[in-house]
Amino acid sequence: MRPAHFSLDGQGALYEQLARVLKRAILEGRFGGGRLPATRTLAKMLGLSRNTVLSAYDLLSAEQLATARGRSGTHIAQSARSTPRGRPRSAPASPSRYAARARQLPPMTLGPRREQPRYDLHYGEPITDPQLFHSWRRKLAAAALRAGPRYPDPSGFLPLRRAIAEHLGRRRGIVCTEDEVLIVGGTQQAVTLAARVVLDEGDVVVIEDPHYQNVAQALVAHGGRIVSVRTDQSGLVTSELAKHHPRLICVTPSHQFPAGSVLSLERRFELLHIAASQSSWILEDDYDSEFQYPGRPLGALRSMDLSDRVIYVGTFSKTLFPSLRLGYIVCPSSLRDDLRIAKRLDDLGSPAIEQAALASFMRSGQFEKYLRKSVAELRQRRNVLLEGLRRHAGDRVEIHDAQAGVHVVVWFRRLNYPQLDRLIEIGIRQGLGLYPMHPNYRVRPVRPGLLLGYAGLSAASLEAAAELFGRCLDLMDQEAGSGNDRKAAARRI
Amino acid sequence: MRPAHFSLDGQGALYEQLARVLKRAILEGRFGGGRLPATRTLAKMLGLSRNTVLSAYDLLSAEQLATARGRSGTHIAQSARSTPRGRPRSAPASPSRYAARARQLPPMTLGPRREQPRYDLHYGEPITDPQLFHSWRRKLAAAALRAGPRYPDPSGFLPLRRAIAEHLGRRRGIVCTEDEVLIVGGTQQAVTLAARVVLDEGDVVVIEDPHYQNVAQALVAHGGRIVSVRTDQSGLVTSELAKHHPRLICVTPSHQFPAGSVLSLERRFELLHIAASQSSWILEDDYDSEFQYPGRPLGALRSMDLSDRVIYVGTFSKTLFPSLRLGYIVCPSSLRDDLRIAKRLDDLGSPAIEQAALASFMRSGQFEKYLRKSVAELRQRRNVLLEGLRRHAGDRVEIHDAQAGVHVVVWFRRLNYPQLDRLIEIGIRQGLGLYPMHPNYRVRPVRPGLLLGYAGLSAASLEAAAELFGRCLDLMDQEAGSGNDRKAAARRI
Repeated sequence: MRPAHFSLDGQGALYEQLARVLKRAILEGRFGGGRLPATRTLAKMLGLSRNTVLSAYDLLSAEQLATARGRSGTHIAQSARSTPRGRPRSAPASPSRYAARARQLPPMTLGPRREQPRYDLHYGEPITDPQLFHSWRRKLAAAALRAGPRYPDPSGFLPLRRAIAEHLGRRRGIVCTEDEVLIVGGTQQAVTLAARVVLDEGDVVVIEDPHYQNVAQALVAHGGRIVSVRTDQSGLVTSELAKHHPRLICVTPSHQFPAGSVLSLERRFELLHIAASQSSWILEDDYDSEFQYPGRPLGALRSMDLSDRVIYVGTFSKTLFPSLRLGYIVCPSSLRDDLRIAKRLDDLGSPAIEQAALASFMRSGQFEKYLRKSVAELRQRRNVLLEGLRRHAGDRVEIHDAQAGVHVVVWFRRLNYPQLDRLIEIGIRQGLGLYPMHPNYRVRPVRPGLLLGYAGLSAASLEAAAELFGRCLDLMDQEAGSGNDRKAAARRI
Repeated sequence: MRPAHFSLDGQGALYEQLARVLKRAILEGRFGGGRLPATRTLAKMLGLSRNTVLSAYDLLSAEQLATARGRSGTHIAQSARSTPRGRPRSAPASPSRYAARARQLPPMTLGPRREQPRYDLHYGEPITDPQLFHSWRRKLAAAALRAGPRYPDPSGFLPLRRAIAEHLGRRRGIVCTEDEVLIVGGTQQAVTLAARVVLDEGDVVVIEDPHYQNVAQALVAHGGRIVSVRTDQSGLVTSELAKHHPRLICVTPSHQFPAGSVLSLERRFELLHIAASQSSWILEDDYDSEFQYPGRPLGALRSMDLSDRVIYVGTFSKTLFPSLRLGYIVCPSSLRDDLRIAKRLDDLGSPAIEQAALASFMRSGQFEKYLRKSVAELRQRRNVLLEGLRRHAGDRVEIHDAQAGVHVVVWFRRLNYPQLDRLIEIGIRQGLGLYPMHPNYRVRPVRPGLLLGYAGLSAASLEAAAELFGRCLDLMDQEAGSGNDRKAAARRI
């Protein structure tokens, strides 16, 4: 035994540390003769008290790795001695096909910056309304005493499913019962569950271009053969769908993510018709349909579906806050049992207390009230941002003016991609968080653009952010100008 | 158009109901001529006010399904008219292979009875300590204001991961850092994530016989080729493992579920050796290791693993309560990134507020204190139950006396399976919830047995339950006796 190898890890009591080191040495077969050193010898050698060594040996005995035998010392258990010595040579296991695909995924670019800039236009930030968290705290506290400790209903808390069904009838024109509603851990889990029950490896799944990265990545990892179909001012170009014979079509009809268009009525009919005639499933991601500014939006695609092809997905990440991790599926009747079982097998159901708190928040009318307040607030923030962009960015950007959601898109008229990178860099230095559009595309758009999320900043901050954005563009122009000057100067020489 | 088909669904305002019916009729192509009926005509026909009809038509216009054109009436949108009529013939889509497997699963028998009997010995009930929920309520309320609204860290809240790493070092002899800990939605999600990253369809996975049904079902649905290996008084019979060349071995070493044995040291060494030499993964489900009654248990298998083969899984369902839905994986270093990505892709992370509340509960020492209190309480409940069984069931049962956990197993010396069913039936009638052992086996044991969970009942209730159990056995004996009498009587005739 080589004492040089004895280094304690500093966690917990000394005798525990010593026991761990000895255990490792036993497991590695580093004690000759099947005996531990005499306690006095070891104590002296390591400069520890004999009691520490004795306690460590007691621990090893408790774990059956050693047995004290009076005068003949402490013997290592027979089973530990007869084990093949050292680390067995273990071939590095090959990953599953799922893991192999997941390893190939590009890094996510949607996440917020680690060091949050002063004005962060990151998409996905919720409205930060302190009042909501005070209400939510009360609801949670009450639910903690009421929800009960037992395993939850894997399909979701019944009063919550009922409240969601009512809400969808009122707001999205969807007539459904609580039995068709399945509670899940947000849109992400909805997509992975849907993938599991309708997609085998290699099956074709259509996603929009652009699209939400997390959803696309989950489908790639699942093994779907991804076909991206372009979108335009009327949403997904449905005429390009049929030739792919997709098994699943993922679509954001009310507010294309992130480009912002609304799927036209013609295309809705066409999409439903293709799905019905080709036996495809449609995953309708209605992620921010609650935020429509000029009044009543088109109903959900699901409300027009007579052929039971639409898997409707909604989330509370936008209407409440994303750290809640709650969303729902309205299941097509022929997939209802499959989706329910998949949810049960995945995690036995979502946490009970938060579901009970949310049910009470919805039934008391506070949710509707909060939504109305949010819509008013977001409309104002949006107007301030758009106004600021017009004033400070002028004709250098083209604003894609969708009447919904929590973000706007701007396209640059004159910048190229290296210049976009430079602009984002300048932004960071100036305290402005800017996020590019192109990572959300499979086919990179000709012109670069930005995805500007406005829910996380107050109107005053958005005004300042827009002004700062203008200043960053000015700095770009100056750099370009001085670059041109240098080039011109170089030509003159 | 046939007015006979107009039946309103009674949800919401009248005009909304009418709009829904009309929308459906439009989608089904039931209006000839491309126009809606004149408002007066329809109002008269249906006995509604004309304003109701006008409002319904307005809604349809808002959804772009119809357009009012002054004197010429309300026209149905061109796109709605040009759509193929009626329900397209949609071939019933075949399910995914996952869904096909999930549909074949037998119904779960672990769940509690719908109508809870007065004394329910259901396994999985937590200790119902009202004090815990008062503490938890305060933690949640504080966390609601602190956790923040943003998307959580998909791998889990850092202070929680740190608290778990410390706890495992202290209680389970596992030395790990917070980076190796992944927060998941309970053991179930841990298993499905592990399956995803190590198992392809058709790969061999060993489960113990008996085993936890939910875990086995998830592995079947995932597509694992399930091999069950028997257990005995020393846990999993490891000598039967190697020939199967498993890719994954699921095991409950500290307290075999549900038979109750502890995996012996020899077999631990053998198991680790097989895993290392065959490049198998071991999923160590340490589901109730906190509850050990005679002092210090064996360390976790993970603490003996020098070859990085053990995926260690723990849960708060037993130590706190199952409706919480929180657990953790201690990842082998070579699977850490794969498991992290799998968790992110599955649901973007577990809810933030409950993670923050739990971190605070652990760091404040309340968790340790609660555990100590629980262990004392459970020990007492267990003693009361065992004592009661000995007194009231006598030699009619053989008690499997595991020194751990939240349940005991009894085997019947004289009953056969039809008699077991009868006993359970008598139990229900007497207000006693009894649950059989054999559904947890792939190979049905020769003698029938019961799985008696004792965490959910007070000591007094357990005493009453044991007495009632004795009475049910007496009733069985009487029935058997009178049956014998009848048979004897029949013979005499």
